[in-house]
Amino acid sequence: MSILVVGSVAYDSVKTPYGSRREALGGSATYFSVAASYFAPVSIVAVVGSDFRSEDQAMLKSHDIDTRGLARVRGKTFRWVGEYGEDINNARTLDTQLNVFADFSPALEPGHSSAPFLFLANIDPELQYQVLQQMQDRPKLVAGDTMNFWIQGKASALAKVVGSVDVLLVNEAEVRQLAGENNLAKAARRILHQGPRMVVVKRGEYGAVGFTPENVFAAPAYPLENVIDPTGAGDTFAGGFMGYLAASGDLTMEGFRRAMIVGSVMASFTVESFGLDRLRSLSTDAIQERYREFWRLTYFDGTGERELPTRHFALQESTSGRDG
Amino acid sequence: MSILVVGSVAYDSVKTPYGSRREALGGSATYFSVAASYFAPVSIVAVVGSDFRSEDQAMLKSHDIDTRGLARVRGKTFRWVGEYGEDINNARTLDTQLNVFADFSPALEPGHSSAPFLFLANIDPELQYQVLQQMQDRPKLVAGDTMNFWIQGKASALAKVVGSVDVLLVNEAEVRQLAGENNLAKAARRILHQGPRMVVVKRGEYGAVGFTPENVFAAPAYPLENVIDPTGAGDTFAGGFMGYLAASGDLTMEGFRRAMIVGSVMASFTVESFGLDRLRSLSTDAIQERYREFWRLTYFDGTGERELPTRHFALQESTSGRDG
Repeated sequence: MSILVVGSVAYDSVKTPYGSRREALGGSATYFSVAASYFAPVSIVAVVGSDFRSEDQAMLKSHDIDTRGLARVRGKTFRWVGEYGEDINNARTLDTQLNVFADFSPALEPGHSSAPFLFLANIDPELQYQVLQQMQDRPKLVAGDTMNFWIQGKASALAKVVGSVDVLLVNEAEVRQLAGENNLAKAARRILHQGPRMVVVKRGEYGAVGFTPENVFAAPAYPLENVIDPTGAGDTFAGGFMGYLAASGDLTMEGFRRAMIVGSVMASFTVESFGLDRLRSLSTDAIQERYREFWRLTYFDGTGERELPTRHFALQESTSGRDG
Repeated sequence: MSILVVGSVAYDSVKTPYGSRREALGGSATYFSVAASYFAPVSIVAVVGSDFRSEDQAMLKSHDIDTRGLARVRGKTFRWVGEYGEDINNARTLDTQLNVFADFSPALEPGHSSAPFLFLANIDPELQYQVLQQMQDRPKLVAGDTMNFWIQGKASALAKVVGSVDVLLVNEAEVRQLAGENNLAKAARRILHQGPRMVVVKRGEYGAVGFTPENVFAAPAYPLENVIDPTGAGDTFAGGFMGYLAASGDLTMEGFRRAMIVGSVMASFTVESFGLDRLRSLSTDAIQERYREFWRLTYFDGTGERELPTRHFALQESTSGRDG
């Protein structure tokens, strides 16, 4: 089944302790769609400027990505400039130039409005909602992302989006901020009360945790020896996640668990090189092999029903010390 | 098989956003031995002052902990005063009074020196090494912990300990500092070259990762709704880990994987209350049930051999943008 994604396409200039890259293809919709394309057909709705390079267009095509919704308008493509320090997990934004993205108004092409899977990447929640309203039928699954900027600045528009998606994929700080609650499990539960049937918390090098009303699932990140550039890892995760769900059609909890692992698998490739260098040229064998590595990374028992060799004591509940 | 632990016994005064407790029983050897006691007999080697309370001695006895090595000397028991803020994961130390611990010189009682399992909790590495040298036979398994203070101040004494243990259990910042390497996987590999056959990296609310030369295993922490006081979680983890290994006698990689989950299980109880309040009064059913919860938290496939529904493209390796 096919996936529609609305988000950003950008040229990123990034510096990390391992080197730097100028004006490499990036953006949330780009990482998402390339990752998802390994599993299901993807249509992208975004905007680029007249400087958008033909080789980047060709790369999207090589992944069978439908770019009819990739509007090309006069002006410059969105630019982001960022830097990572020794702690490679936190980007410092040095410059953002919205350029043509400032006037972006997503318009769906024929066929787009009946896509069964929809991903609303991190853009203005008013635009996210506008896309939702253009959908002819309610998709089988709608997932969305957001960021601190919108949580602070467009709370009511964002609340409508959160109330409409099936899966909210956000990072750890965002879920706390959105819920106004420091405890992660409580924060996720609060958001589940606002509409989504699943909240997926992205934690970078610590993996991801998915909460539903009945289940919690923790997917680790692979402890990689070569983390070159984490840009796009979260959007890649979302692409692998939605890609697997669209390809398998399995929307049970078992499917969501595997989808989170596939998301982690795809993100692990993205961080191993600058920009899309690694993600854009994966073989199906490499994806399959890393999925097995994730299984080896996490399994510990066949059934969870093992009887632990515990000893029994007659213990009393009591406390030591006194309330301060 | 029995376990010998050398470490600290302390009275902790702790303040968290959920309340406070004054002079509650704590210390690395205490958390370790109570956690391990649910699986195997434990002997504790530590020192307390003349103010050590009889009810705390009785609590250790109720867990069948051998306290012949718990020296009682004139003076006050080790005191620690700490505080946790809204970010409950990081303690701020407000006061440390070593008291009788300042002159601690571990002396083994008859029988101790033939213990098959030995845990060197976080104390001066010279004392850790001194205990190792008092062992009559090389134990089946020696594990050890340390901290930034010793990494900086007693590097050469610590190197002898690291070179002698089978398993080093340290937190994330410590493994990076000890190896002089920011990448976690590379840092762990460097330490593996120094002697240990396993490095277990404790990551608090993010769980733990175990590295051997051939394997990586990631154990999550349970996303608990009630984290009251994280004091002692790392030592509790070590106690569950060693307790399971001693009880099962399984020193294969499969055993180490389960031991890390048992460590996580036990630590999840510790953080749910102040001090040892929860850990000291567990039923075997509660332990077994949480072990099953950890399995439900992490499983995603029966075998890892699932064929993912991938699509194949003829892709070229290339890059976008240019080196900066």
